[in-house]
Order: sequence, then structure tokens, then C-alpha cells
Amino acid sequence: MKKLHVALGERSYPIYIGSGLVDDGALLCRHIQGREVLVVTNETIAPLYLDRLQNSLSSGLSLTKLDSLILPDGEIHKNLDTLKLIYDHLLKNRHSRSTTLVALGGGVIGDMTGFAAATYQRGVNFVQVPTTLLSQVDSSVGGKTGVNHPLGKNMIGAFYQPVAVIADMGTLKTLPDREYRAGVAEVVKYGLIADPGFYVWLKEHVSDINGRDERVLMAMVERSCRNKADVVARDERESNIRAILNLGHTFGHAIETTEQYCGLLHGEAVAVGMLMAADLSSRLGWISASEVEDLRHLLLSLGLPTTVPAVMNSKAFLAAMSLDKKVADGVVRLVLLRALGDAVVTGDYAGAQLQETLDAFCP
Amino acid sequence: MKKLHVALGERSYPIYIGSGLVDDGALLCRHIQGREVLVVTNETIAPLYLDRLQNSLSSGLSLTKLDSLILPDGEIHKNLDTLKLIYDHLLKNRHSRSTTLVALGGGVIGDMTGFAAATYQRGVNFVQVPTTLLSQVDSSVGGKTGVNHPLGKNMIGAFYQPVAVIADMGTLKTLPDREYRAGVAEVVKYGLIADPGFYVWLKEHVSDINGRDERVLMAMVERSCRNKADVVARDERESNIRAILNLGHTFGHAIETTEQYCGLLHGEAVAVGMLMAADLSSRLGWISASEVEDLRHLLLSLGLPTTVPAVMNSKAFLAAMSLDKKVADGVVRLVLLRALGDAVVTGDYAGAQLQETLDAFCP
Repeated sequence: MKKLHVALGERSYPIYIGSGLVDDGALLCRHIQGREVLVVTNETIAPLYLDRLQNSLSSGLSLTKLDSLILPDGEIHKNLDTLKLIYDHLLKNRHSRSTTLVALGGGVIGDMTGFAAATYQRGVNFVQVPTTLLSQVDSSVGGKTGVNHPLGKNMIGAFYQPVAVIADMGTLKTLPDREYRAGVAEVVKYGLIADPGFYVWLKEHVSDINGRDERVLMAMVERSCRNKADVVARDERESNIRAILNLGHTFGHAIETTEQYCGLLHGEAVAVGMLMAADLSSRLGWISASEVEDLRHLLLSLGLPTTVPAVMNSKAFLAAMSLDKKVADGVVRLVLLRALGDAVVTGDYAGAQLQETLDAFCP
Repeated sequence: MKKLHVALGERSYPIYIGSGLVDDGALLCRHIQGREVLVVTNETIAPLYLDRLQNSLSSGLSLTKLDSLILPDGEIHKNLDTLKLIYDHLLKNRHSRSTTLVALGGGVIGDMTGFAAATYQRGVNFVQVPTTLLSQVDSSVGGKTGVNHPLGKNMIGAFYQPVAVIADMGTLKTLPDREYRAGVAEVVKYGLIADPGFYVWLKEHVSDINGRDERVLMAMVERSCRNKADVVARDERESNIRAILNLGHTFGHAIETTEQYCGLLHGEAVAVGMLMAADLSSRLGWISASEVEDLRHLLLSLGLPTTVPAVMNSKAFLAAMSLDKKVADGVVRLVLLRALGDAVVTGDYAGAQLQETLDAFCP
């Protein structure tokens, strides 16, 4: 097992990466402070891991409450109505301010459970037990929580840190292929934004990554979390540098919003978005056309999409982008690449250049 | 104009107390950082002050958006559904992360607008312009924001500080008598919990308080805010000492919840609750029966209720109290009085003594 540290002063917390951690009662219980627990999960994950997690929790602690809530699965349910189900459950079962919420699932469960924890009685503890690659390398680390609004993704939320993240490599074995690949997209992101050596490593390990080799999984998750923790520690509330973690996300969110979260998965949309960001960067003369092709090739070899869904056109794409949180005084600030491995947040591009990228990608 | 300072490190902010501040464009605009503003108010306050506030804002700033949202009035609307109206408005009108929300109204508007600000795009700036005595002396200061749930008051919320509080004494002139008196209850609270000299001062100024003498209003609001700011600066997130600000509130919330926020006003319920806390304190031998009578007399002379509504019985009262946020491991922690002017948070009372107080007050 590896242990990383997210350095955020009094809000610091550990990330554990290993195999079989869902069954590690001693590890889990070390991070439960009160005597009440609510495990929030979804209908896909519950049959696989809920009993095991609850057994681990009850083995190590004398709890007065050990409840579970099973939500419907999918990004389409990441909204205020589903969030309300968590509040209702907590209040009907009289959970106090000393309760701990445990998020068992992917990014949707983690984001919603984290936001419920941030806002139930103005804040209770929560533990992330991410079961997808995407949530292990990205959404469970860094404290971004929230839900979507019909008019935009993650528009309602809070910065709220977990007390621990427990990433069990075993859960990646049961992950559907498409979801696994969507997680790999966020892994590629870390190479692109700040870790050129990791980008090269990924190109060299495509076949082991696609085969979910456990040793390679561990290394990949650890290096991703280390990258993310470093950025978050430098800028918890995304005042500046943290925004580079959004490489491909403004483009990607526009796709997700237009498809109403029923088309490409988040990671898939980010894969397309990263390629669009690379394309725009090359139009600015920052990277070469061959580097864009290099990235396209890597994404394709990892089974990721590289084209915009047929329902989009460039006008709708631009309108959806302008709803993004990173708009400041009317200009959409984008994460672009000065090199493969060096990202920057900027509003300093011509509208015509963005239009060229949109025209090149939209059907 | 008086200026107080709430000392919370990087989250510090000023409180301004004076006359005609709604029309002070220069003062208001100093606390707007971006170029977008949404004023949230209610249908009672809007006809009185919305135009004046908007004129002040537009006189001093070149804003790209100056929107307003008028919500229905009353505690019954302080819920997730009304909160959603704020999110909808912000998104439909494309407010960015650099927008500022201005809460123009009483505690309900301030709590909901503050929570919307805490959670819109994971946090935007907000300014409190409290127009009721209760919100000026209590709810606008200290960063408690949130909404009610059918099963409990303020169960969903966040600690989130405004960038400024602007309290215009002029707005107290238009306040209905009952609401004014409800605010006076929270003023009495500061005397009871930590400021015995203020308690004596209040007894000496009953007639000026009832007459809303402007000089006395200024002094009363300033001393109340100073007391609150001191406590909040010592314990922002209510880990310990801040809980004394809840004197009378556990009893009061039980009344409000049972009446479904349609009976006594919050401050009125707190008045009854403070007297019940004093009664229990005297049963513990901490204060004398004559001190309880002294408080009852003061509350009555200020036009405040001192009896529990006829719909309550002691069993329902106890059940409603046990839902309070201040429950720890099954024990309701209460704010009780060691003396008039010295409060303590404690679970150290016998259930039978609490029962005696409930029986004495419930019809």
C-alpha cells in the first residue's frame, strides 16, 4: 500500500492506494471520528462492495448507526433532487453533526456525497472510497464537490476536503471497459499539463494500461494523485494554478451539457476536449501539428474518442462554452499547452482561432 | 456611521452601522469586486428599498449586470425550492464566478442568499444589507448561511462569510412592530450570555427601545454586533464558545419546527426559549427564581411572548428538541445561565429537570 499526503494545513489528509483496501477495517475505522456512519453508493456498486465495506466498518468500530443509501447510477442523477435524497435520509434517521458520510462509488457519488457532507448541518466529516479510475485519479482528490444544474455542469457546489481517500485497485477489475478508458483520459491529462516524463511513460505502457496490469495500475494512480495533490496544495480554491487541471474540460463540459449527460462519459468528453485544446495551441504556434497528432494517436491507442459527437455544431458549441465557470468579464479562459507537459490558463487567443478549432472538430 | 471589524484572518470583514447607508453608493461600491451584481430581496422589502439600492450601485460602478430577484417573504419559503430560484436566475442570466450577490432583507433573505453565494460555482462574493433588527444584530454577522428542511431548521447550510455588512438604521423605521420586537429578543440575548452591563443598560432604556429612538438604536445595534463579532472571531465554526449564541434557540427551534414556521417569529420563539433556559438554570440552582422573574418582566416590557404556544405539549416539545444540531451522542446540549450575563453550553443536567421546565411551560 502507498500513502500520499495532500498538504492543506488543518485540512490535510492522506490518500491510500493499494489492493483489498475495501476489506481493511482497521484502515477505514481510523478515519471515522463519531459513532454514526452513512455509506452513500449507487445501484451498480452496492451489490459488489457495499456488504464488504459495511463489514469492515462494523468489525472495527462500535457504531450506533451504520446506514446505507443506494442512489440511481449515472451523471444524469447528479442534481439537486438526488442530493435531497441524501439530506432526507440523514434527517429521517436522525444523523447528528458528528456523523461521517462515506462515498463508495465513482465521481458522481463522490461529488454528491461530498457536497452533502459540506452542507449537512453546515459540515460533517466524509471519507472517499473511489471505485472508478476516474474518481481515484481525479475527482476524489482535491475537495471539489457539487451537483449539476440543467444549465451547466458542477454549477452548484463547494470546496470541501475529505478526511481520507481510500483507493482500492481491486475495484478497477470490475470496471466496465468504457468507464476504465474514460479514467485513463484524466491520467493522460496529468502528463500533458505538468509531467512530460509521465506522458512519455504512458506512451511506453499503452498495452499494460489497456490490460489493467496491477503493477502498472498502482504506478499510474499514484503518479496521477501525486500530480493532483501537488497542484491542489498550491492552490486549493482555484485562484490560479489549479485551473490547469481543467485542461480539456471547458470543451468537454460543452459536449456533456449539450448531450445532457447522456452521450459521452465525462472522461471521454475530456479526451476530445484535450485534443481540441492541443489543436488550438498549435494554431497559436505553441506546439507543433505533429505533437497534436502524437496526442491523437495516444488517445486512439487507449481506446478514447477524438471527435465531437454528431449532434453538435460549432455555434451551439461556442454558446455552451460561454456558460463555463471560467468565464471572466465575457472572455472564456482556456487551458492551453505551451508544450506537451506544460499547460497555461489564458484568455489570450483570438476568437477567430477558437472558431477554427470548433469548425475543424464539429461535424 | 460606526465601523466594526469581524476578525477572521483572510475572511475578515467590516460591519457599517449608520443612517441612510442604503443610499451611500460610494460605501456599497467599495465592496463590489467584479462587474456583475444580483440583488436578492423579497416582495415586502423590494417596494421600499430595491430602487434606492440599485441606484446607489449603478451610481458608483459601471456594471455589466445589475439584476434583481424578488422572492416571496417569510420563513416558510426558506427552503431548497426557493434556493433553486436563485440558482436558476444566476444561470439563466449567465452570472459568472466574479458576480456579487447582495442580500437586501431580513434573516431569511440573508441566510438563503449567503448559502447561494457559498455554493454558486463553489463560492462567489456576497454583501449583507440587513433591513430588520434581527438580521442587523444577529443573522447577518458571522457567516451562518442555509435553509430549512421539513424535519429541522437550518439543517442544510454552510459557514460562509460576507465581504461586508451594511446596516442602515433607517430601514428599522419601516419595520412592523412585531418584527422589531422579535429582533429585540436577540439583543437581550447578548446581555444574558456575556455582557451583564448591557443587560442592565437594556432594562434602563426600555422606553427608548420601544420608541425606536435613533440614538438608542445605533447604540443597541453596535453593542450587539460587537458582542457577536467577538464570539465569532474566537470560534468561527462553532467548535465551542460560539454555541452560547444559541441561548434559547434549541427550545425556540422546537417551537418553530412544531408550528412549521407559521406561528411565533424566530425572535419571539427565542424569547420564550431564553426564559425556559433561565427556568432550567434556576432548577439547577445556578440563578435565582427572582432573576428568572426579572428576565420575564424585561421580556414582557419589551412586548415579547413568555409562554409556549397552545399547540405544544411537553412530549412533542422534547421530540422536536432531540432533532437539534447540538445533539451529541444522544444528549441535547443546552445553553444555560450561570448568572445573568454568563452562559455556558452543557449536557450536564438531569432529564427530570428538563422535564420539569417543559411541564411548567407547556399548556
